[in-house]
Amino acid sequence: MLDPQTPKHGFAALVGYRLVDWQEDRAEIALDVEARHLNRSGIAHGGVAATLLDTVLGYAGCHCAVPGRVRRAVTLSLTVNYIGAVEAGTTLVAVGRRVGGGRRVFYAEGEVRGPDGALVATGSGVWRYRDGSGSPEGVPAE
Amino acid sequence: MLDPQTPKHGFAALVGYRLVDWQEDRAEIALDVEARHLNRSGIAHGGVAATLLDTVLGYAGCHCAVPGRVRRAVTLSLTVNYIGAVEAGTTLVAVGRRVGGGRRVFYAEGEVRGPDGALVATGSGVWRYRDGSGSPEGVPAE
Amino acid sequence: MLDPQTPKHGFAALVGYRLVDWQEDRAEIALDVEARHLNRSGIAHGGVAATLLDTVLGYAGCHCAVPGRVRRAVTLSLTVNYIGAVEAGTTLVAVGRRVGGGRRVFYAEGEVRGPDGALVATGSGVWRYRDGSGSPEGVPAE
Amino acid sequence: MLDPQTPKHGFAALVGYRLVDWQEDRAEIALDVEARHLNRSGIAHGGVAATLLDTVLGYAGCHCAVPGRVRRAVTLSLTVNYIGAVEAGTTLVAVGRRVGGGRRVFYAEGEVRGPDGALVATGSGVWRYRDGSGSPEGVPAE
Repeated sequence: MLDPQTPKHGFAALVGYRLVDWQEDRAEIALDVEARHLNRSGIAHGGVAATLLDTVLGYAGCHCAVPGRVRRAVTLSLTVNYIGAVEAGTTLVAVGRRVGGGRRVFYAEGEVRGPDGALVATGSGVWRYRDGSGSPEGVPAE
Repeated sequence: MLDPQTPKHGFAALVGYRLVDWQEDRAEIALDVEARHLNRSGIAHGGVAATLLDTVLGYAGCHCAVPGRVRRAVTLSLTVNYIGAVEAGTTLVAVGRRVGGGRRVFYAEGEVRGPDGALVATGSGVWRYRDGSGSPEGVPAE
Repeated sequence: MLDPQTPKHGFAALVGYRLVDWQEDRAEIALDVEARHLNRSGIAHGGVAATLLDTVLGYAGCHCAVPGRVRRAVTLSLTVNYIGAVEAGTTLVAVGRRVGGGRRVFYAEGEVRGPDGALVATGSGVWRYRDGSGSPEGVPAE
Repeated sequence: MLDPQTPKHGFAALVGYRLVDWQEDRAEIALDVEARHLNRSGIAHGGVAATLLDTVLGYAGCHCAVPGRVRRAVTLSLTVNYIGAVEAGTTLVAVGRRVGGGRRVFYAEGEVRGPDGALVATGSGVWRYRDGSGSPEGVPAE
């Protein structure tokens, strides 16, 4: 059974990453790299790591422990440094950590790793909480 | 008939952007935003603008005027600032400009615009040319 | 006579830049590069361009047309791309432009140019307005 | 006696930071914040943290264990996220770590901390080695 929080639609489903872990100030997602993720040079498109980092860093600041409620934020700025190339047939694991901020904005950092934990990319950025999401209690899910 | 340079496979096809213009130091791509590009808040996922910017900025430094030859580069660093939200049913246009560099690295900047030219995101970054691609003549396409 | 808005104390005085132009959504500062601005390789320290960009981009979003009042903001994120080296004896001109945002945050972009307008560095970032400074009327200067 | 490697001239002397530790892939510098480091809002100018991070991250990739020889690099891109404010009378400690790269470029990340280890800013970036400096043996110091 899929984790009920694993995204099953939209860009998350298109790209195909899955939620591995989500707790206060930390999130982890994974992606199996396939041909559909490659660029014209035969390695994972830079947009893939950027997507994983935007997702997992944003998640890191938006965990909500209250059932039926969520926390939402919009990315203000994201920087990705590309350290290693990735080919099809491997699995990427992206981890995000909230490192600072308050009720209005938060900061997160993290990295994408490939086979044997090799560093593929690092990322950092700033997010703005949507109204009501600055509190750990969040807002009603819908 | 599609422009023969429009990517038809890999992540480019998955995300669905198309090449609009490509010339020395400048590139332009477009994307029709659909449900598959959205995040859990119902707006375009941050990974979409990041993908468009990584693509179009990289293209801006890799135009090759010689038939049968290409220039390749790898992204070293990419920063995206998210300025406006985008919903499904709109078209995004991303423009990239090479602004500096030499035979080893190049710098590019650009932006993503939505309806009525509204700024959706800006981006900047640094790329490293693959061996042989620092020259305008590039390398054999395959 | 110095422009009364030219900073005369703190880090601004230490580094030595001067205000050249400041209007709605745009600012310009200049710096004469001297030996005290160089790094151990004999070119301007990367911190110099970063300081100029943090300053001028922040100014771009904080112009206040009301006498006796000011607008204040704190930098959330700043990215600098270093394109050209600078030696002592030259003058740097840094321009910043506010490109988006609202009452809570703003986005700015700009560049540092050296002799003959050569690009030295580009910068972009996000700022958060301090309370009251999101309005064009700003807050009392002291 | 000062560590002979502590910079005593140029921008390093002007800003006033001192080298605390420098080893393979890691560097640490410190700065006592004084009135001359402040901006017009009375907190440390954003250029201060940017200068510390550009310095310490660059050092992290340039340690050279061979007496009389050095390694030099130029910053390609630097991103700073500003997390906390700093007042005069405190000491900042900046740590940089080389996290990847090879003989041509390297990647580094780090942070600036204030009293009680509070996070003031984080930084990441990419550097290009100057000719000969990609090797651990570096080049003659002069």
